[in-house]
Amino acid sequence: MKIKTVETYDIRFPTSRDLDGSDAMNPDPDYSAAYVVLRTEEGAEGHGFTFTIGRGNEVVRAALDALAPFVAGRGLDDLGEFGRRLTHDSQIRWLGPEKGVMHLAAAALINAAWDLHARAAGKPLWRFLSDMSPEAIVDLVDWRYLSDALTPAEAVELMAQVESGQKERTSLLEAHGYPAYTTSAGWLGYPDEKIDRLARQAVADGFRQIKLKVGADRADDVRRLALARAAVGPDVRIAVDANQRWDVGEAIEWMTELSAYDPWWIEEPTSPDDVLGHAAIRRALIPKGIRVATGEHVANRVVFKQLLQADAVDFVQLDACRVAGVNENLAILLLAAKFGKPVCPHAGGVGLCEAVQHLSYFDYVAVSGRLDDRVIEYVDHLHEHFTDPVVVERGAYRPPSAPGFSTRIRPESLIRYSYPEGAAWN
Amino acid sequence: MKIKTVETYDIRFPTSRDLDGSDAMNPDPDYSAAYVVLRTEEGAEGHGFTFTIGRGNEVVRAALDALAPFVAGRGLDDLGEFGRRLTHDSQIRWLGPEKGVMHLAAAALINAAWDLHARAAGKPLWRFLSDMSPEAIVDLVDWRYLSDALTPAEAVELMAQVESGQKERTSLLEAHGYPAYTTSAGWLGYPDEKIDRLARQAVADGFRQIKLKVGADRADDVRRLALARAAVGPDVRIAVDANQRWDVGEAIEWMTELSAYDPWWIEEPTSPDDVLGHAAIRRALIPKGIRVATGEHVANRVVFKQLLQADAVDFVQLDACRVAGVNENLAILLLAAKFGKPVCPHAGGVGLCEAVQHLSYFDYVAVSGRLDDRVIEYVDHLHEHFTDPVVVERGAYRPPSAPGFSTRIRPESLIRYSYPEGAAWN
Repeated sequence: MKIKTVETYDIRFPTSRDLDGSDAMNPDPDYSAAYVVLRTEEGAEGHGFTFTIGRGNEVVRAALDALAPFVAGRGLDDLGEFGRRLTHDSQIRWLGPEKGVMHLAAAALINAAWDLHARAAGKPLWRFLSDMSPEAIVDLVDWRYLSDALTPAEAVELMAQVESGQKERTSLLEAHGYPAYTTSAGWLGYPDEKIDRLARQAVADGFRQIKLKVGADRADDVRRLALARAAVGPDVRIAVDANQRWDVGEAIEWMTELSAYDPWWIEEPTSPDDVLGHAAIRRALIPKGIRVATGEHVANRVVFKQLLQADAVDFVQLDACRVAGVNENLAILLLAAKFGKPVCPHAGGVGLCEAVQHLSYFDYVAVSGRLDDRVIEYVDHLHEHFTDPVVVERGAYRPPSAPGFSTRIRPESLIRYSYPEGAAWN
Repeated sequence: MKIKTVETYDIRFPTSRDLDGSDAMNPDPDYSAAYVVLRTEEGAEGHGFTFTIGRGNEVVRAALDALAPFVAGRGLDDLGEFGRRLTHDSQIRWLGPEKGVMHLAAAALINAAWDLHARAAGKPLWRFLSDMSPEAIVDLVDWRYLSDALTPAEAVELMAQVESGQKERTSLLEAHGYPAYTTSAGWLGYPDEKIDRLARQAVADGFRQIKLKVGADRADDVRRLALARAAVGPDVRIAVDANQRWDVGEAIEWMTELSAYDPWWIEEPTSPDDVLGHAAIRRALIPKGIRVATGEHVANRVVFKQLLQADAVDFVQLDACRVAGVNENLAILLLAAKFGKPVCPHAGGVGLCEAVQHLSYFDYVAVSGRLDDRVIEYVDHLHEHFTDPVVVERGAYRPPSAPGFSTRIRPESLIRYSYPEGAAWN
């Protein structure tokens, strides 16, 4: 297959008009996608995107345009080579390396290529990946900078160990789904009454874990967590998320105060670049029964590697679009399996639930082989704009059977939410 | 003062036409600047830029345009607030945070604001900074995420300790200059004869340290380092620079082989994100007499903080334009002083020597108060395009007396090297 054209879009949803999605660092996001459509000479399409929260989405689109010459007119049969082509160019690499705007754009293009391949194979991405051999998976990974933590041979061995149970786990997954938790109850901008109501509703809907935003005001957090705990009872897990608001010492003090309400994890307590800071926070909080999670802003596999090496996190919150797409997320799944840490992906935003579910299913079927303490974030936002929206029932994601990566936005939504010319912005 | 207009430029020099600047990761750079001119309503100007190596420079320019609304029509009297305004916007922050393309653009704008201020004060930047009180310097820093390593009060105390010797050090600096080392002898694309000739010339010119690029071929590196050592003798320091080519184990093995030729430091042995990797490399190489240096690609103060906390580096190679300009580099100078590590800035490229010299002078006069083992990189490239080019004589930088940040490209060069329309590209 050969790519003929690369079309790019700046898509924004005016979510800041209400307070859905509000947290301590992000008071008024406009959930957005830098979106790309790859077309082959034969007329096949691959759709991919990366997620942003508004301003600057046009810079990511400019980055997509800067990477288009590495894609248009060229082959994409070898998805490992395709990924490295987008992250190894010596001049472009200077702008990272492998982080920020250029890496977000690489994610969109690589994810689009996977959508195209999975669709050509007539399989949903999670099955397309699960049907590959361990050796083929390993060939997709960029191994640079990983060998002090994991080698390709070890990765093959990890996957080979669980290979015999694949068929059974696939059946279980299709029968029972994959556990979800909901963030929809706990946005920072919500009044107490709404949190109480939504927390009770979440339990009634079958969720065994909810998440609350914290970090803006300590007294508010105590009050909100107390009421959420009263609403859900002692057995439903409550994760809290500070969205990077704290310094290390502040995170420890603040969470110590919240520990009375038995929070399951503290997410993004500080800078996502601060491996040693997360390790210090974890050392202080584990004795108080609080685990540490991060990942949605972790720049690349090298930082994830260190979070695992330093025993700095309990949960690996990979994001489908922050690192270089499926390829780099395979590396992260393999690293997490090596260190025995559950992957609990970041989702929400625009289309992140649709995309990232595939990675968790693949992890369960072919990498970790485990479901214990694994959950995928769920936010009931904007799914109606996708041609293959996620299905979450009784607190569980239901794996899609449609071919592709579930990353396609409906054509009418692409028109309506194009920024700044779409009708939604006039 | 209030900014009236923000003009942005994509400037590229076709340096890939020869092999100057070639290294193991960057075989054919076109040294480039995403350049910005701020104009006040009163007609004052500030010029700033960030450095890239070619492709993608247009994406950084797009990022400058995305940040322009935070600058145009607004004040810039408070440079601390100005810096935070460019790095704290909640929507833009999602694209980093504080790394990659958006951070490079913030650097250019913040540096332009400093050029404007220093010029308005009639002082070169290094003097403008040195004349500020420790308290005023501390107010310029974004302290978020630093308090586990350094507090504002400690930073004031560090500067106060050396305050009495400022006048004497300023005189010494103006009389003797600041030590430089040269990278011009050792580009990877140069033949042996040229390395031999340029290394001897460097010693004759007064340099006490040179640098060679390594990391592409081990046998070549052994041969080139042996001939450079023979050319400069045992007392001139030879640094080597792998430009991120290696995994951790590979770096240790490769440098162990080169240790016979007494390299002074190994620079960028692996990923700039790999704090723990650098620490492991340093632990293995220090017993062999080899020090570790990194910084030109270190994304921000949080990663520098960890490199120091983990005792992962011997030299802090800050870059004038990679992090958020002068403001964030003040944080890095203070962190380095706290941990007692010499700052040896990255320079070369386009205008990096011109800009970064000011930070080293300020460090000597007002922060560390020391010159031992401190050197500024020097590459004799492209200085002719600047209105106030660096002066390096007998192996030492000579501090400029002209007002500003030395960051202004000549108007005729801005026209000739504008990409893609300038005459240099036709």
